[in-house]
Amino acid sequence: MKITSNNEDKRYMRYALNLAKRNLGNTGKNPSVGCVIVSKEKKIISAASTGLNGSPHAEKIAIEKSCADIEGATVYVTLEPCNHSGENPPCAELLVKEKISRVVISQKDDNPLVDGKGIKYLKDSDVIVDTGVLEEEANLINGGFLNRVKNGKPNINIKIASSADGKTALRDGKSKWITNDLSRNYGHRLRSTHDAILVGINTVLSDNPMLNCRLEGLQNRSPCRIILDTTLRIPEDSKIIKTAKEFNTIIFTNLNASRKKIKKLERLNVKVLRVSQLEDSYLNIDEILLEIGKAGFNNLLIEGGHTIITSFLSSEKVKLIYWFSSDKIIGGDGLSSIGNLNLQNIKEGPNLKLIEIINLNNNYLKTYEVLK
Amino acid sequence: MKITSNNEDKRYMRYALNLAKRNLGNTGKNPSVGCVIVSKEKKIISAASTGLNGSPHAEKIAIEKSCADIEGATVYVTLEPCNHSGENPPCAELLVKEKISRVVISQKDDNPLVDGKGIKYLKDSDVIVDTGVLEEEANLINGGFLNRVKNGKPNINIKIASSADGKTALRDGKSKWITNDLSRNYGHRLRSTHDAILVGINTVLSDNPMLNCRLEGLQNRSPCRIILDTTLRIPEDSKIIKTAKEFNTIIFTNLNASRKKIKKLERLNVKVLRVSQLEDSYLNIDEILLEIGKAGFNNLLIEGGHTIITSFLSSEKVKLIYWFSSDKIIGGDGLSSIGNLNLQNIKEGPNLKLIEIINLNNNYLKTYEVLK
Repeated sequence: MKITSNNEDKRYMRYALNLAKRNLGNTGKNPSVGCVIVSKEKKIISAASTGLNGSPHAEKIAIEKSCADIEGATVYVTLEPCNHSGENPPCAELLVKEKISRVVISQKDDNPLVDGKGIKYLKDSDVIVDTGVLEEEANLINGGFLNRVKNGKPNINIKIASSADGKTALRDGKSKWITNDLSRNYGHRLRSTHDAILVGINTVLSDNPMLNCRLEGLQNRSPCRIILDTTLRIPEDSKIIKTAKEFNTIIFTNLNASRKKIKKLERLNVKVLRVSQLEDSYLNIDEILLEIGKAGFNNLLIEGGHTIITSFLSSEKVKLIYWFSSDKIIGGDGLSSIGNLNLQNIKEGPNLKLIEIINLNNNYLKTYEVLK
Repeated sequence: MKITSNNEDKRYMRYALNLAKRNLGNTGKNPSVGCVIVSKEKKIISAASTGLNGSPHAEKIAIEKSCADIEGATVYVTLEPCNHSGENPPCAELLVKEKISRVVISQKDDNPLVDGKGIKYLKDSDVIVDTGVLEEEANLINGGFLNRVKNGKPNINIKIASSADGKTALRDGKSKWITNDLSRNYGHRLRSTHDAILVGINTVLSDNPMLNCRLEGLQNRSPCRIILDTTLRIPEDSKIIKTAKEFNTIIFTNLNASRKKIKKLERLNVKVLRVSQLEDSYLNIDEILLEIGKAGFNNLLIEGGHTIITSFLSSEKVKLIYWFSSDKIIGGDGLSSIGNLNLQNIKEGPNLKLIEIINLNNNYLKTYEVLK
């Protein structure tokens, strides 16, 4: 088979995308980017991901660790190189200085600080620039960052673990163990790729979870834990509060919450943020998401419960649903995965696009993109 | 890669299994068998499936249409060749007469009329016999036949079409169109591979379905339609009754059903069978299944509704669930796929093994084996 230039570009870009995925959820306010450098002789001479906490940038690491001369090389990068100085030097300048002859970019950076200026700088410096290679895949990685810098809010992903018939618990609320070990481990991996994870206070009260990533080797990639707790009911002896010195923890509560309890929680290293309450007695999700954006979180994983998931799905732009289905049937008297949506017509409801199915030892994980 | 004899056997047997699938649901009381003949020179010289309505047997067709001398050949067959004369001559004798040197059999025929006698006859005539090649796959094809001849009942498969969250209709009962065109077409294909299809009277009253196979080229493979209609409420102007001269139709009703209406339906070519009614007011499923077995149906597809599916899943040995899931979410107020099972513990419920997932243009079909 003759490999066309196009397929070759895709092949290198796919590698760069895999590198970008590697530190997703762990690059702070920066996007997680992948970079691959291919020499004039068509050899991969370097490859890198954005560093943990966001520095250095992938391009800088790749250039520095290259195993051969990079003059005249082609650089594959999953997001437009920056051209502004922040905590890191501008990558576009670096690429020009190193005499890179071509830069292939998966996705343009809409971030107002970049917004085509990186590409313009490269072109003005006589570097060949090609864009849009595997852009759709890149957007699944960059989307959270781009959404935050443009709209001030993170991308919202939902995790559901249900029986084969879509139930998340028996009618008495029992849910141990619907899914198998491998699914639960994969759930921990999902946590490691998100900047923050959100649950409602009822989940804390009923399950007393830790909400960290407990996979060997990835413990330091646990997300920030966010609890929606309208009337600040969280027990001080809950696992969440007891581990708040080890894992970042934010609690959202209403404007009337006890100042004494807030002080107490703050002393235990919990950040407590007060937001307004809506007529339906729920906390104002819009304010919450803007606060989460302000904290610099690009990707948020909603883990439950039922009411929180339904509320986000009804009112907000949810990006992905990670849906684990098990090999059990619970029956109609079990708890449904999603709450009442009061649809008059099937077309009104959320519409999904199946991106991937992974078999997890007779359980399986479906990743859906929510189209509306 | 060196192909071992074992892999070679599997390869030919897989071809034979695909041939067996071809007429599944359309071989009357006989099993649907596949047969492949491989010459001494390792060339496939013939291949056949059991004829429509069950005659001739696959082995006989394959021998007759062979394109080369079959003396010394190896015959691959998905079920033990028969050694008794019924409507068809005994295949084991035929294979010996044709001087076949080796017969590879996927599954032994437990049918009391065969039960190893075919294998014994071949071995006594100095034919090499190997059995058990891809037996598990063969059992998915032969299982209905073997179950019927041993226990007098067909294999029971269930078809479900639901939203991504496992709902089969909105709360007002609306279910058009949860799944897409391709899923619905595949549903028709499923009908063509079953001898009979069963629904409850409520499905007839609410949807007025035809329950035939409407795929181009497969219309003559429509299954017998079976309706459970306790008090014989079926309207004479329903599509089922109006097409009963074209497609076989059986109605099960209770012992008190109006004799006048029965006579009327019989004149319209409907077979009406009366069975006892249980205390819970449902018809006696055990009697129904024995009648279906007596009619010679090997594989029965249950298409609904909700109550019938739940009742079969709770009380009977269901073999497979064909579960179509769509790209829509309906929410907790929709109708659940399965009715109440009143489980105290998740382990009590049906346990599934995922056999296959097929992507149907963003819907998907999961085929589950029900393990208990």
